Amino acid sequence: MAITTTAGILVSLLTVFVAGKIGGELFERMRQPAVVGELLAGVLAGPAVLGLFHSSVTLQTVSTMGVIVLMFTVGLETRASDLLRVGRTALLVALLGVVVPFGGGLLFAAAFGFSNPEALFIGTALVATSVGVTARVLADRGFLSTRLAKIVLAAAVIDDILGMIVLSVVTGMARGGLDARSLAVVLVEVGAFIAFELFVAPWLVRRHGHYLERVRVANAPLVVAIVVMLGMAATAEAIGLAGIVGAFFAGMMFAETSERWKLDRSTRPLYVWLVPYFFVLAGSQVDLAVLSRPAVLLPGLLLAVVAVVTKVAGCGIGALGEGPRAALAIGVAMVPRGEVGLIVASVGLASRVISPSVYGMVVLVVAVSTLVVPPVLPRLFAWSSTDTGGPRA
Amino acid sequence: MAITTTAGILVSLLTVFVAGKIGGELFERMRQPAVVGELLAGVLAGPAVLGLFHSSVTLQTVSTMGVIVLMFTVGLETRASDLLRVGRTALLVALLGVVVPFGGGLLFAAAFGFSNPEALFIGTALVATSVGVTARVLADRGFLSTRLAKIVLAAAVIDDILGMIVLSVVTGMARGGLDARSLAVVLVEVGAFIAFELFVAPWLVRRHGHYLERVRVANAPLVVAIVVMLGMAATAEAIGLAGIVGAFFAGMMFAETSERWKLDRSTRPLYVWLVPYFFVLAGSQVDLAVLSRPAVLLPGLLLAVVAVVTKVAGCGIGALGEGPRAALAIGVAMVPRGEVGLIVASVGLASRVISPSVYGMVVLVVAVSTLVVPPVLPRLFAWSSTDTGGPRA
Repeated sequence: MAITTTAGILVSLLTVFVAGKIGGELFERMRQPAVVGELLAGVLAGPAVLGLFHSSVTLQTVSTMGVIVLMFTVGLETRASDLLRVGRTALLVALLGVVVPFGGGLLFAAAFGFSNPEALFIGTALVATSVGVTARVLADRGFLSTRLAKIVLAAAVIDDILGMIVLSVVTGMARGGLDARSLAVVLVEVGAFIAFELFVAPWLVRRHGHYLERVRVANAPLVVAIVVMLGMAATAEAIGLAGIVGAFFAGMMFAETSERWKLDRSTRPLYVWLVPYFFVLAGSQVDLAVLSRPAVLLPGLLLAVVAVVTKVAGCGIGALGEGPRAALAIGVAMVPRGEVGLIVASVGLASRVISPSVYGMVVLVVAVSTLVVPPVLPRLFAWSSTDTGGPRA
Repeated sequence: MAITTTAGILVSLLTVFVAGKIGGELFERMRQPAVVGELLAGVLAGPAVLGLFHSSVTLQTVSTMGVIVLMFTVGLETRASDLLRVGRTALLVALLGVVVPFGGGLLFAAAFGFSNPEALFIGTALVATSVGVTARVLADRGFLSTRLAKIVLAAAVIDDILGMIVLSVVTGMARGGLDARSLAVVLVEVGAFIAFELFVAPWLVRRHGHYLERVRVANAPLVVAIVVMLGMAATAEAIGLAGIVGAFFAGMMFAETSERWKLDRSTRPLYVWLVPYFFVLAGSQVDLAVLSRPAVLLPGLLLAVVAVVTKVAGCGIGALGEGPRAALAIGVAMVPRGEVGLIVASVGLASRVISPSVYGMVVLVVAVSTLVVPPVLPRLFAWSSTDTGGPRA
């Protein structure tokens, strides 16, 4: 045993967790999402300012566990059948909510003269709505059972998957260049993986899930869920997808049995402990010296405006059939960008496709887009329900 | 982000978890404790045989998290007031259950000509009853509410603390030699720490715990518990105690509020995911080539016999006031050695005080002492209750 480093492991686990929770608590008290507080805690406690911790294999391990658990949890909220059964509205909201921001990002990148690969990453970072933030705000205010919330959730999920596909494709392109053959391979792999997850996996769990009741090991459903979560994430990585895509689909496999197997409840403590490490570590990668330069701050704020406007516009147009107030509410609900945008930026940074400046801009986009929504969303939902004569379940 | 090693992190997390759970499942099916299966899975899947994984900072991190969570959970089952209020019987059982096996270990070491420091580690490894194994067997068979079970649990807890104090003292001595002054410092530190944890900490939680209800962050009790767990473990390491001692006392701080704050339930998933890593990694440190040498195997089996007999005798004599059948049942219930014995051996191995051969012997002791008890314990409990006219609550 590495008894000599046990103290080191404990101290860095403690430091990052405490920093993240203090940040989260402060932002909760300001009625803002905890995730923004965790990001800023990472900026402050990390190497950029206080230097209380530095990136290490220990922290990267726990951060990886955290983001895998996060995406598994999001998957748990998502039934494959919901995805397949979504109405025209959700699909339209999702597609326009992906295409318009992606285009906006590309235009922004072109206006500022970024390279092609960099432009792809900027566009991709603007694509995916953060299901977690959206769902949490709607749940906290009691809007989850409304028709609008269902459209938003379904659209956000499709949007998330589209964003992940775009991420996988962009990552593949960043690794192998714009090679048509490797792109085709990625698309086939992605297609096969998603087809398996959408059509085969839920059937497998539904048909053979009762075998779990014969397993003797304590908490068998959670054990199997963890194995599938790690296994799908590792598989996704092996075929060139992002590990979080696998974890998300792994969660979706259990969406229908989540309640019966209490997975929603038993993954909660894992979420509470592990997820903050990802966001604190993500925040700690922001180079404040770079961010505070006008050359980063001003375009970053502009990019944030682009991110908000394009999402509201794209999703709103897609949802116009629900009436103008509902369309606005749905558009705003789709605005928050979270983990996926950061992951895109992390991938881009790690593969040296995007610069630390662009990474800083994306962090700004995530912070701004996540910050502006929670205060106005409940009012918009209440307002649109008076428009449509009360929420329809 | 170390995106290049995400796949590596995921694969080693998956491999160790799957190996541990397969081992656990097989042993559960044989009506044996899962922990033995996890240890053997570590031997088989680790470098000694299959080489499916190797020790790494990633695995050491998760293993450390696991053992901290394990000892925190054991602490959760233990009220400071129970420790302070224990009757003469539990104290006598605990003391004789520590002194007799410790003496037996020293005699064994003397007979085989081991060095003094090595003899101390062998004696220490025989001291501590595994509260987890004992409690789990009693709970599974519905004996937890009996008077005998309460004596066993109280005694096992005192025994655990005594074992940890002995471990801390022995570790301090192994680090600093048999220096009387450093020994005194260790004892004062240990005394102050334990006095704080026994008398001040429970009062603090009882008196000021209601502030938790003002905290906005989700799952505030679990968040505070994790902070205290990591903080106490790091503090314990900082003053020269083992980190697990701190985690155990951290758990004890919350023992009285555990049910109200649902900590017993919310630490469960952490336990399910993280704890196996410690045992699989511990098992993977066994050098089969060394263990299979008659010079290790035969003394190891003899040491296991010494461990079982001295514990039954010591605890049984301490419990004779309960009648002979009850005394035998209590003595057998105290036999399982688990995590603490392995931790002692790990500390000794890491500080190069004990050899890999002695480590192998201790693993044998843990396996044998853990294996022999579960099949006979329920019968002994039923038998002794007919002796005393039914279990007294």
